[in-house]
Amino acid sequence: MIDLNAIGRKARAAQIQIATASSAAKNRALEAIADSLLAHTEQILEANARDLDAARASGMSPSLMDRLALTQVRVQAMAQGVRDVASLPDPVGRILSGGTLKSGLEMQKITVPLGVIGIIYEARPNVTSDAAAICLKSGNACILRGGKEAIHSNTAVANAMRAALPQAGFDENCVTLIEDTSRETSRELMRLHSYIDCLIPRGGAGLIRSVVENATVPVIETGVGNCHAYIDRTADLEMATEIVFNAKCSRPSVCNALETLLVDAEIAPTALPRIYARLQEKNVEFRGCEKTCRLLPQAVPATQTDYEIEFLDYILAVKVVEGLDEALEHIRRFSSHHSEVIVTRDLEAARRFALEVDSAAVYVNASTRFTDGGEFGLGAEIGISTQKLHARGPMGLEAMVSYKYVLYGQGQVR
Amino acid sequence: MIDLNAIGRKARAAQIQIATASSAAKNRALEAIADSLLAHTEQILEANARDLDAARASGMSPSLMDRLALTQVRVQAMAQGVRDVASLPDPVGRILSGGTLKSGLEMQKITVPLGVIGIIYEARPNVTSDAAAICLKSGNACILRGGKEAIHSNTAVANAMRAALPQAGFDENCVTLIEDTSRETSRELMRLHSYIDCLIPRGGAGLIRSVVENATVPVIETGVGNCHAYIDRTADLEMATEIVFNAKCSRPSVCNALETLLVDAEIAPTALPRIYARLQEKNVEFRGCEKTCRLLPQAVPATQTDYEIEFLDYILAVKVVEGLDEALEHIRRFSSHHSEVIVTRDLEAARRFALEVDSAAVYVNASTRFTDGGEFGLGAEIGISTQKLHARGPMGLEAMVSYKYVLYGQGQVR
Repeated sequence: MIDLNAIGRKARAAQIQIATASSAAKNRALEAIADSLLAHTEQILEANARDLDAARASGMSPSLMDRLALTQVRVQAMAQGVRDVASLPDPVGRILSGGTLKSGLEMQKITVPLGVIGIIYEARPNVTSDAAAICLKSGNACILRGGKEAIHSNTAVANAMRAALPQAGFDENCVTLIEDTSRETSRELMRLHSYIDCLIPRGGAGLIRSVVENATVPVIETGVGNCHAYIDRTADLEMATEIVFNAKCSRPSVCNALETLLVDAEIAPTALPRIYARLQEKNVEFRGCEKTCRLLPQAVPATQTDYEIEFLDYILAVKVVEGLDEALEHIRRFSSHHSEVIVTRDLEAARRFALEVDSAAVYVNASTRFTDGGEFGLGAEIGISTQKLHARGPMGLEAMVSYKYVLYGQGQVR
Repeated sequence: MIDLNAIGRKARAAQIQIATASSAAKNRALEAIADSLLAHTEQILEANARDLDAARASGMSPSLMDRLALTQVRVQAMAQGVRDVASLPDPVGRILSGGTLKSGLEMQKITVPLGVIGIIYEARPNVTSDAAAICLKSGNACILRGGKEAIHSNTAVANAMRAALPQAGFDENCVTLIEDTSRETSRELMRLHSYIDCLIPRGGAGLIRSVVENATVPVIETGVGNCHAYIDRTADLEMATEIVFNAKCSRPSVCNALETLLVDAEIAPTALPRIYARLQEKNVEFRGCEKTCRLLPQAVPATQTDYEIEFLDYILAVKVVEGLDEALEHIRRFSSHHSEVIVTRDLEAARRFALEVDSAAVYVNASTRFTDGGEFGLGAEIGISTQKLHARGPMGLEAMVSYKYVLYGQGQVR
């Protein structure tokens, strides 16, 4: 097993340097990293080919294989992603508030980096460069632990980045990839309290649960989206149909995709067949409550589990509800607090839904698919938080900083 | 053992109601609570007498006895504290930012309550009403677990508060005190992931460590202050002496008190005897490095532990350093990231100290004792965070909220 304490110590030392680096210096490092990724394209693609061979041999599904696969164009996109982060405003050193206190002390509340960020993620190798770029720009060092399916690709990407850091005057340990993908090492990382200031797991419900259960370091939970749409009795059915189609079908494997449809009983007899017909373009399976099955013979009966999980597939859980109160109650019970939408023409229903639904993003008459750092204008995104502490919803550079108070006096005592 | 899941369920149900309550309704509840505390003064003092009897029998120290003791005046102060919280601005429902996205969605980023707050604290019964008031004002329910030394007092205070809530139209389970003070119940509370959105331990290093080790719910670490003063070679020695005296002696038992003094070698021969002489007014014991002991024969040799711990007493760890770099290195190694101060006349030394010291509050020429919610203008304080995630330094009402994004569309899909 590798020595995580040694890795932590080195990351901490590197972080102290980058924490106080100028924006210009950090941007030079990011540009050097982008250049280095391009210069190492051949090595990265060779390493990726080894991962793809292993994946094929293990019978990985075509959609996962596609996530894992790199091409020259994808490596160029990774490099461009790093340059895009360089072009964003520096989140460090912003004065959030300040003024003179009653004691005469001049106070400034100033943004500072979080420190050392641990990131545990799954198959996609582009996360390695995306996450590292966001961490560097915000003055943080990062310790990355990717999935074993992508280990050769991730190592090649990390090596290309580390090679560039000293050229720009930075310690290569600003970015560290843990090459040991064992579960034990992952668990140890979750408990590396002296060296990890914040741990961000990016992946499915199983990974998030394991981190929550095992981590003693501060964690930001991300990415589990059991998202709901509620079709109010006053809804424009054309709009409702298109929103449900888009939210369920445009990319079913992502966390902001729709998983459960709630329909007011008053309009269910017309709404359900119409929505069902539209979603047959993608052969979506409906799993419904008793009333749904009565109104829509094509639906199969839903179990409680169907309301609890993310399908991440062309499957939709459906329930007919007696109005807004029952919809809100269902959402409170089953939502993962990611994204929910009401389709309505009723002002009071919209107001209550926006106020009472306790999720990171609450929509009135729009698809849940908009919950995304780019769509929200954040420029880059390191994940979508589903917890309430620190950061909620899409996390950009601003979620990667803390603050400190600096107080200037002339000998004040209390 | 009590059923914490049942307590959690009830707190969650109560929280849903208070989360969306108006400021006026919450303030009415706080006024009713203040009235009820006064009306129950007799019961509270009787309960407190039982705690004091038990404390005396167990040989509790006079200073701890004083923290535990309630009087009519102290109950009045508790009631006034609750009214003071009522008079503060509501932190919920503030629009932090917003505007129209490229998709045409109108976005608002709005503050919302955290949910259910768990608070584990030690001897002082006034924390019961202070913490509950801050939670209620910020739309949160709270589950309180105080120390066993104060169990009768805490129960009486909590009962007085709970009795008032229904009068103001709120569920009494907005405030719950766990009457079982066993360690097992405390551990279970730290793992009550379905019902606790944020756990705040208030107490000594042992409690904080236990929470960090055992909690699976999101935690805000508070209150451990291994605070440092660095006396630069250019310091005004009169100012340095008064700042050190105040920071060490005005209230040694609190977290913002000074624990370690670092002195530049160039001025140590004059500075150390002078500071030592001043601190002899309070018979402060100096535990010094070799150089300190050579310059100041009254000092006793320091061990590494002396630099690591909070004395919370009239004891000061002292080290002579070769300039700012060594001081910064010592602080990086031993600080608990609470409060540190440099005394200097040198602009560049001040700038570097403010930039490089990674603590919640960094002072130039002022006492560390100012790190306090009241001094920082926060109005009320639920603790002083020493972590970087979510909130740092003194936490007022603004630290008790999260935010959500509300997005209004006209049928947008992606």
